[in-house]
Amino acid sequence: MENKRIRLGHGSGGKLSHDLIEKHFLPYLRNDLLEELDDSAVFDLNGKLFAFTTDSYVVDPIFFPGGDIGKLAVCGTVNDLAMSGATPIYLSCGFIIEEGFPFVDLEKILDSIKKTAEEADVKVITGDTKVVSKKSVDKIFINTSGIGIIDNGIRISGNKAAVGDKIILSGYVGEHGIAVMSKRHGLTFETNIESDCAPLNKIIANILKEGLQVHVLRDPTRGGVATVLNEVAKKSNVEIFINEDKIPIREEVMGACEIMGLDPMYIANEGKFIAFIALEVADRALEIIRNSKYGENARIIGDVIKKEKGRVVLKTCIGGERIVDMPTGELLPRIC
Amino acid sequence: MENKRIRLGHGSGGKLSHDLIEKHFLPYLRNDLLEELDDSAVFDLNGKLFAFTTDSYVVDPIFFPGGDIGKLAVCGTVNDLAMSGATPIYLSCGFIIEEGFPFVDLEKILDSIKKTAEEADVKVITGDTKVVSKKSVDKIFINTSGIGIIDNGIRISGNKAAVGDKIILSGYVGEHGIAVMSKRHGLTFETNIESDCAPLNKIIANILKEGLQVHVLRDPTRGGVATVLNEVAKKSNVEIFINEDKIPIREEVMGACEIMGLDPMYIANEGKFIAFIALEVADRALEIIRNSKYGENARIIGDVIKKEKGRVVLKTCIGGERIVDMPTGELLPRIC
Repeated sequence: MENKRIRLGHGSGGKLSHDLIEKHFLPYLRNDLLEELDDSAVFDLNGKLFAFTTDSYVVDPIFFPGGDIGKLAVCGTVNDLAMSGATPIYLSCGFIIEEGFPFVDLEKILDSIKKTAEEADVKVITGDTKVVSKKSVDKIFINTSGIGIIDNGIRISGNKAAVGDKIILSGYVGEHGIAVMSKRHGLTFETNIESDCAPLNKIIANILKEGLQVHVLRDPTRGGVATVLNEVAKKSNVEIFINEDKIPIREEVMGACEIMGLDPMYIANEGKFIAFIALEVADRALEIIRNSKYGENARIIGDVIKKEKGRVVLKTCIGGERIVDMPTGELLPRIC
Repeated sequence: MENKRIRLGHGSGGKLSHDLIEKHFLPYLRNDLLEELDDSAVFDLNGKLFAFTTDSYVVDPIFFPGGDIGKLAVCGTVNDLAMSGATPIYLSCGFIIEEGFPFVDLEKILDSIKKTAEEADVKVITGDTKVVSKKSVDKIFINTSGIGIIDNGIRISGNKAAVGDKIILSGYVGEHGIAVMSKRHGLTFETNIESDCAPLNKIIANILKEGLQVHVLRDPTRGGVATVLNEVAKKSNVEIFINEDKIPIREEVMGACEIMGLDPMYIANEGKFIAFIALEVADRALEIIRNSKYGENARIIGDVIKKEKGRVVLKTCIGGERIVDMPTGELLPRIC
């Protein structure tokens, strides 16, 4: 009976999520645009390209070091648009609130939405609020959808990784996931790690305005760096080679991962991106990223080494090689 | 302490919902477009008008006579776009699903989404799925956001009602609310009433393509006909006069309302609209509506009689007159 019901793992961003989409959603809803399964859908209207994306945020706890559900709801959707090469312009905001939720918390969340939207230079132009009885929702869930415009016919997609591409990671991994987990009810470990939650559209704009050949952009949220690299390897049908010792990880994140038996490569980030960039311009792209806010710790972590196989090979710190797979179960539910 | 926490009434669509928006949301998120507070936000991009809207659907039960949460999620958002005079083109779909939810139910819902989207001629082009642990959400909530395009510079808005306008209601009221309530756990009354849940974009397109002067379009969902008329009266600052005996109500809906002590004027509809149309073309508009699917029982129910006062006056069946106000509390939670 187990396989007749939705499991937490179906929301993990990993293998079960992909199964859910492939086996259940696409058979009903399949169309050219949905099928791309990029962070945003990109459509053409009278010769002008637009990006459209949606995400529901169910993070628990709703306030965590470095952010809250409101900041996350703006950053997540802004970043999904940016990863399509779009300039985010407008957001919608749908709230589902549990009866009895304190106004003081709602206002804190609204203030975060306001401040983050200002920083990202986007406007919330339409909204909806539903209130449901106690225990029908856990405190507050927020959906944001976003619209962006894509200039100059830029087409960035998970299927455009090419042999020779350099892979840039924009900073330290795993901070969001660990920050959220450290405050979760029932867990006792303490860290000073803050979520990296941040809008990445300006840093992406800095790269794109120089016309650099960017093939793929992805933000490693649910499922982390390992999941995103696997998605790109499969969609582009290429083999990706990553140097483990190039992946920037803070000691505290590493320590927390060890305590919980987690691999930081699978932990969610909310203010990082991975860029696949043509070899010739990779150094220039890295320079731009490192000179931008939120990109100071960017590094080249690997390459696209050959066509086919659709897999990710990691050269470990101790010198061995191993295949990095997609996660199968749910490691950290309600991380975003 | 009561007024420091969100109550069910804040999600009713009535007075408390308006308070929530005016006193809590707008102070943080105010901008020209959001402030319009129409069913969709309308924005101009390079001289082309677009509509953008969002709604979360939390209906309980998720399957009800005449529809389910999937059909509702498509119709509701398609209709919000249509009420701005837009042609809906693309939808997003965000699912929040409770762990253990049966796949068989998910597929029924997806099938409804597919069929309704086909009927409305819209495509779901982007999506998101979150799975949360048991009791963190009641079964399944769906958010749909939608994008539409507005041709010929049409500007329909709740603030455009003008003295002399005829007010057309497209059919019987209260069916959605009563159909949902009749199946709600713990309620024992039975009816044969089915939800009127339907996409209204084609019927609206039929009116607009003749270039008739349509001032306001609204779908009377949460809060029903009374709430929508009040919103328009206030936004346009006009006095609206309605003939109670012109409002089409099925006997069974009336009967159910009597049992529950509800006023059908406040019951939600999901396949009806109210149009404010210039006197000279009202008869032609009515003819078009009555010749369209879902509009066969349309009637002129009243007029805009004068400027100011921002109120709705009802001439009752027994000949008296009374002010129809906005609802203050929550009559029927989780109706949509």
